[in-house]
Amino acid sequence: MARVVVNVMPKPEILDPQGKAVTGALKRMGHEGFSVRQGKRFEIEVEGDLTPARLEEVRQYAEAVLANTVIENFEVVSQ
Amino acid sequence: MARVVVNVMPKPEILDPQGKAVTGALKRMGHEGFSVRQGKRFEIEVEGDLTPARLEEVRQYAEAVLANTVIENFEVVSQ
Repeated sequence: MARVVVNVMPKPEILDPQGKAVTGALKRMGHEGFSVRQGKRFEIEVEGDLTPARLEEVRQYAEAVLANTVIENFEVVSQ
Repeated sequence: MARVVVNVMPKPEILDPQGKAVTGALKRMGHEGFSVRQGKRFEIEVEGDLTPARLEEVRQYAEAVLANTVIENFEVVSQ
């Protein structure tokens, strides 16, 4: 059983209202000097061996399904 | 400018409807043998040096604000 992580983050040039809300909340709580961006983390258990073909399959559906590549960047990390 | 990442994932014993939905969607698309859990990723830019005290500050507000520790686990990763 192999594990792959897909991280999906809003592109730097895209407004991130969730991150802005967290940054503002931290400031109001007295935590100064932090800038937060919020994205998604997918932990994927892969049955069987993680062959290069299987990893490429993950990359393809990460691009097609897990991320909205108009506004988000993604990375695939095998562990 | 230092960067800290906080990963927040549903606890293993907690149902994860988002992950279940993604797992089901992948199956319907013909991607078999994947089990997905969905969580959150926070990328935090820290002004100035990342001292142990600053990192502990992040850990504390990650526990209090970013994660709901009743149903979620979190980890703090400094980069």
